[in-house]
Amino acid sequence: MRIDGRNTDDLRPVQLTPDFIPHAEGSVLIEVGRTRVICTASVEESVPLFMRGSNKGWITAEYSMLPRATESRTPREASLGRKSGRTQEIQRLIGRSLRTAANLDLLGERTIWVDCDVIEADGGTRTASITGAFVAMVQAMDKLVDKGALNTVPIRSSIAAVSVGIVDGVPMLDLNYEEDANAEVDFNVVMTDQREFVELQGTAERQPFSKTRLDALLDLAESGIAQLIDTQQQALGAMRKR
Amino acid sequence: MRIDGRNTDDLRPVQLTPDFIPHAEGSVLIEVGRTRVICTASVEESVPLFMRGSNKGWITAEYSMLPRATESRTPREASLGRKSGRTQEIQRLIGRSLRTAANLDLLGERTIWVDCDVIEADGGTRTASITGAFVAMVQAMDKLVDKGALNTVPIRSSIAAVSVGIVDGVPMLDLNYEEDANAEVDFNVVMTDQREFVELQGTAERQPFSKTRLDALLDLAESGIAQLIDTQQQALGAMRKR
Amino acid sequence: MRIDGRNTDDLRPVQLTPDFIPHAEGSVLIEVGRTRVICTASVEESVPLFMRGSNKGWITAEYSMLPRATESRTPREASLGRKSGRTQEIQRLIGRSLRTAANLDLLGERTIWVDCDVIEADGGTRTASITGAFVAMVQAMDKLVDKGALNTVPIRSSIAAVSVGIVDGVPMLDLNYEEDANAEVDFNVVMTDQREFVELQGTAERQPFSKTRLDALLDLAESGIAQLIDTQQQALGAMRKR
Amino acid sequence: MRIDGRNTDDLRPVQLTPDFIPHAEGSVLIEVGRTRVICTASVEESVPLFMRGSNKGWITAEYSMLPRATESRTPREASLGRKSGRTQEIQRLIGRSLRTAANLDLLGERTIWVDCDVIEADGGTRTASITGAFVAMVQAMDKLVDKGALNTVPIRSSIAAVSVGIVDGVPMLDLNYEEDANAEVDFNVVMTDQREFVELQGTAERQPFSKTRLDALLDLAESGIAQLIDTQQQALGAMRKR
Amino acid sequence: MRIDGRNTDDLRPVQLTPDFIPHAEGSVLIEVGRTRVICTASVEESVPLFMRGSNKGWITAEYSMLPRATESRTPREASLGRKSGRTQEIQRLIGRSLRTAANLDLLGERTIWVDCDVIEADGGTRTASITGAFVAMVQAMDKLVDKGALNTVPIRSSIAAVSVGIVDGVPMLDLNYEEDANAEVDFNVVMTDQREFVELQGTAERQPFSKTRLDALLDLAESGIAQLIDTQQQALGAMRKR
Amino acid sequence: MRIDGRNTDDLRPVQLTPDFIPHAEGSVLIEVGRTRVICTASVEESVPLFMRGSNKGWITAEYSMLPRATESRTPREASLGRKSGRTQEIQRLIGRSLRTAANLDLLGERTIWVDCDVIEADGGTRTASITGAFVAMVQAMDKLVDKGALNTVPIRSSIAAVSVGIVDGVPMLDLNYEEDANAEVDFNVVMTDQREFVELQGTAERQPFSKTRLDALLDLAESGIAQLIDTQQQALGAMRKR
Repeated sequence: MRIDGRNTDDLRPVQLTPDFIPHAEGSVLIEVGRTRVICTASVEESVPLFMRGSNKGWITAEYSMLPRATESRTPREASLGRKSGRTQEIQRLIGRSLRTAANLDLLGERTIWVDCDVIEADGGTRTASITGAFVAMVQAMDKLVDKGALNTVPIRSSIAAVSVGIVDGVPMLDLNYEEDANAEVDFNVVMTDQREFVELQGTAERQPFSKTRLDALLDLAESGIAQLIDTQQQALGAMRKR
Repeated sequence: MRIDGRNTDDLRPVQLTPDFIPHAEGSVLIEVGRTRVICTASVEESVPLFMRGSNKGWITAEYSMLPRATESRTPREASLGRKSGRTQEIQRLIGRSLRTAANLDLLGERTIWVDCDVIEADGGTRTASITGAFVAMVQAMDKLVDKGALNTVPIRSSIAAVSVGIVDGVPMLDLNYEEDANAEVDFNVVMTDQREFVELQGTAERQPFSKTRLDALLDLAESGIAQLIDTQQQALGAMRKR
Repeated sequence: MRIDGRNTDDLRPVQLTPDFIPHAEGSVLIEVGRTRVICTASVEESVPLFMRGSNKGWITAEYSMLPRATESRTPREASLGRKSGRTQEIQRLIGRSLRTAANLDLLGERTIWVDCDVIEADGGTRTASITGAFVAMVQAMDKLVDKGALNTVPIRSSIAAVSVGIVDGVPMLDLNYEEDANAEVDFNVVMTDQREFVELQGTAERQPFSKTRLDALLDLAESGIAQLIDTQQQALGAMRKR
Repeated sequence: MRIDGRNTDDLRPVQLTPDFIPHAEGSVLIEVGRTRVICTASVEESVPLFMRGSNKGWITAEYSMLPRATESRTPREASLGRKSGRTQEIQRLIGRSLRTAANLDLLGERTIWVDCDVIEADGGTRTASITGAFVAMVQAMDKLVDKGALNTVPIRSSIAAVSVGIVDGVPMLDLNYEEDANAEVDFNVVMTDQREFVELQGTAERQPFSKTRLDALLDLAESGIAQLIDTQQQALGAMRKR
Repeated sequence: MRIDGRNTDDLRPVQLTPDFIPHAEGSVLIEVGRTRVICTASVEESVPLFMRGSNKGWITAEYSMLPRATESRTPREASLGRKSGRTQEIQRLIGRSLRTAANLDLLGERTIWVDCDVIEADGGTRTASITGAFVAMVQAMDKLVDKGALNTVPIRSSIAAVSVGIVDGVPMLDLNYEEDANAEVDFNVVMTDQREFVELQGTAERQPFSKTRLDALLDLAESGIAQLIDTQQQALGAMRKR
Repeated sequence: MRIDGRNTDDLRPVQLTPDFIPHAEGSVLIEVGRTRVICTASVEESVPLFMRGSNKGWITAEYSMLPRATESRTPREASLGRKSGRTQEIQRLIGRSLRTAANLDLLGERTIWVDCDVIEADGGTRTASITGAFVAMVQAMDKLVDKGALNTVPIRSSIAAVSVGIVDGVPMLDLNYEEDANAEVDFNVVMTDQREFVELQGTAERQPFSKTRLDALLDLAESGIAQLIDTQQQALGAMRKR
């Protein structure tokens, strides 16, 4: 039994609140346990300089935490004058994952900006961001189809993300902050609805790990991501019915 | 009648959701019409260098908008590498107002950091921030009293803030974004529960204004602020009962 | 009687030295007591990107203090790598005031850059900057008329600025540094020659203030600004005769 | 057969030139095909603030590329005024890997700074950096033992790193730049001499990949890393004999 | 005859106005033709970290130009967020020259900050800065002696600076802006009252120059500097008499 | 006899390794004693904005030191977020010298970027950079001629650079780090193969120096530069034969 009563293969409760920022093209509040992230998708009718004339679209992500998302206050990056390495690493991961899920060839020469702003952080903020960002992005694409700017939703596969790790020698799904802080091994996994990998980032925080352990972790991740993709589909289905 | 059906002396609906970020010492979500701001108060057991040994406390504020708080996306200040002049002006205003409301001599050598993060912006974000920040700050002070760190809540007066302005020649209370964008004159007023002024910032956006007009605007502000202080007291009262 | 022997409603001696930087389109050294500011106006035959094609002009201001303008040396902002919030707030105030005084529709697609560089600071640097900047700006506009680039001087009203405040309970006009440092209430007022307000920024530095006090302060400001506008007109008249 | 004539499971020729920067505590030039990186290790007799008094050591890494390491010139980060997200991601990876290899408890309160400067880049610069950095770090530790500052070399396991990827559908070991630019899947793997994982970073550049593919890639990585660790040991052995 | 009627070995008219910023420990306005620089010297009773406990003093300089010192407006370095290479080069030159003139061993553990702010620039701003800065620095040292903080003025030699150059094939003393812009060779020379060199910086702007030419230029510089040192001594003598 | 056994007029051993970075248009590793610098020249088929349409070329230089080029580690400028004044001064010197050596009128509208990266520093890094940079630049120009982009190598004169200085009262050629740290006078001289000066930068580090001393130093510099130009010519001759 884990500190919050879950089994090792349990996700925390997941809730998606669509249209959290009503005027945005896409938006969702994702809550995974006490981790809460506002994800918005904004459509800009142009692409970065290096893609002009390519007839392709672009998707880019930014990630940030409110100063008091964390247990004690974290200084604001705008006050420090620059983004930390951690922030940049996370937003590069989110952007890459979304671009792999999408079909940029069918998006037209436009950019989707995805913003993930963590308002409360209890572990797994980057994976919750990806899972929520996918929903906001698809909602924005749906609106482009609705208004006739696109013929089809330019998605190649659904994606979601989860963390897994080894805590006190035991592989566990969806670590909260306390578990994460004590993990010997820490993985972030992004997968498709076809159970294929999009991103795999594993770190031996305290000690190296064997191939056997890796396989156990990836099995846990796969089962968690399947559930997350179900939750995403229900939210998107509900939004489309309206 | 105004574009959203209000009378010239009507506030928009105001809602305060305390404990919006549960682990923060103080926190509230303030909603004024569609303007929504997360205000948190964080207690740090030290003061800035220039106040060490003074036996006084300090209160400082930071203000930011999520990129998609605005109708179209605004670039993130952490990405630009510096805060805009507007942001700095607003957070200096919030900080000054809170320090005037508080009694720094009774706070002890500690700092209260107040963060105001706008998640949706429809005019009046700086005044909503002040009104919400006061509640978060008092909640944090209450907790210091509860745990015995302070004998008394170090507040000299309650404060709240509202915008007033002249739109199409008519003085109006609590401008929304569309009204604000068309205002000839724009005022931000911070007042106490004793109906005294803490801050007064008025700008002739399009044409200079007379003393008569100024007086009419300040009357509107006074009535609005009285209502806002009532709402604050109800929220604080409810929190203290728990 | 005040520390420097003035009555509460006395301005300090004011002197305007036009053409202080001879090659600039407009320039003046303004001295208000020991506060000295070099104001220059520079004409650039283009406007910022967001105004291209609007057929309107633009006016923008920058403000700075020499390191040793202050009693003890203040670090240089270029050394720190960024402007302080105070500097940005002041230069935004100067720019807004000048734009309200001018008729941008008649300026043509050109920008007037106004630079206010404080060489000695004894209180009231921002209001002295506005009073001097107006003269430098009009001189630059005069030259545009002289060389046929404009038919008329694109000014809607003359403006000047002054500080007022409450020191030891007494409302006073034109605070010097020592008075300002002890003021309970501090106001900066920008008015036109028609005695209408352009900007009003009041702060309760120590304690909130009543409407009665506000009215007394604004009366003082009005009388001071009337005198400053006289001084400006004399300087501009002398320049135009040459 | 690959574009440079290698088999899919061949490393490029690897060469380690120790003492490349003679006055550094540890230094090596690592060449992997045409990829060349200067790795130095510098010992500083203090630790970062957050570790003072912990009786532990710290290891940190910085990574950079000379502007003309790349086929066409890349602007210098010192000229841009900040490190790119890619640079920060890489130097965080190098630092984490080295800290996992080392026993910080036995290092004493000192810091080892590892600098990896790429002078020529033909793919795999981050993995070559790790492989070279390990040698430079151990050399610096050896010197601490030699001069009596440490009793034992504070290493828990040898580590090395390699890239693997899928190019035109074929899993390959140690991608050069051209292969990397065309890879569908791209992995960086850091492993110990016990064939356990330290870091695993895999990205679907073009399309998601299955567990089967993952396993094939990890097998390739394991064989490559075993060879790299042999090469490191020979270099370290030769250095220790002198 | 030169464009402004001078002979090749004529200085422009030089004027020193001491106490230009009365509250500074040392200050002078130096005017060399139309080049005008405000020089101040500020005494700080501490030294930089690397000199603590050395029982020596330190002298450092900063240089800046007001935006409209130049014929057309130059953007402000505080707005750009960093000092240009030119500015840094000049302030390093001023600081080195003053430190060579002074006896840091006799200054005590204090710093003299010298600020040179150019209000009008017509060539030779760096040399005028050095000539003026020396006077401001000595005035500040005199005050330290007057108040008993020092026994003796810690100066080893008087210094002054001038530019020389070759224009249209002719060596000339003290170039104004137009001459400087057309110079083939451009020299800045700092010398003592003993006719010894402190700094020599010569650049072939258009074509290399021979030793014979160099000697001619240095002769011109020597004669100009002798006159400047006379002017400095008169100004310092007058200040000391008061 | 000097600390490393040289006579006062001896250069340290000089070695030029051309094509050190094979894919660059020009590259050389220059070694002067233990000072080692990688110089590359990169051709870009455009010029900076201010030169567009001028039908002229441009040459610009950047200079940097690897962190461990120095005896103890120097923080990386990209980590500090800005280049030091020293770095900017040096790269401005290198760029000016190369532009004087070249004939920009014959280069066509293209830019040559010269990068000088010091991998080991034992005094004289800026002069070694210039001597090496000239070779890399000419090699890049040779390639432009070879591929028909230019008719002739656009060089007006060969240049090389050396340091001279006075140590313990004795004028010496080509100071190493230890000598440089103890020098009373320190000169950097750039000259042509016609024995004419391009740049002369002399500083009295400890005490002013006479014209007699200056002449002795320039004689030493001239003899050293003649030898360096020979070495450059041999390297360029060898490269052209291949």
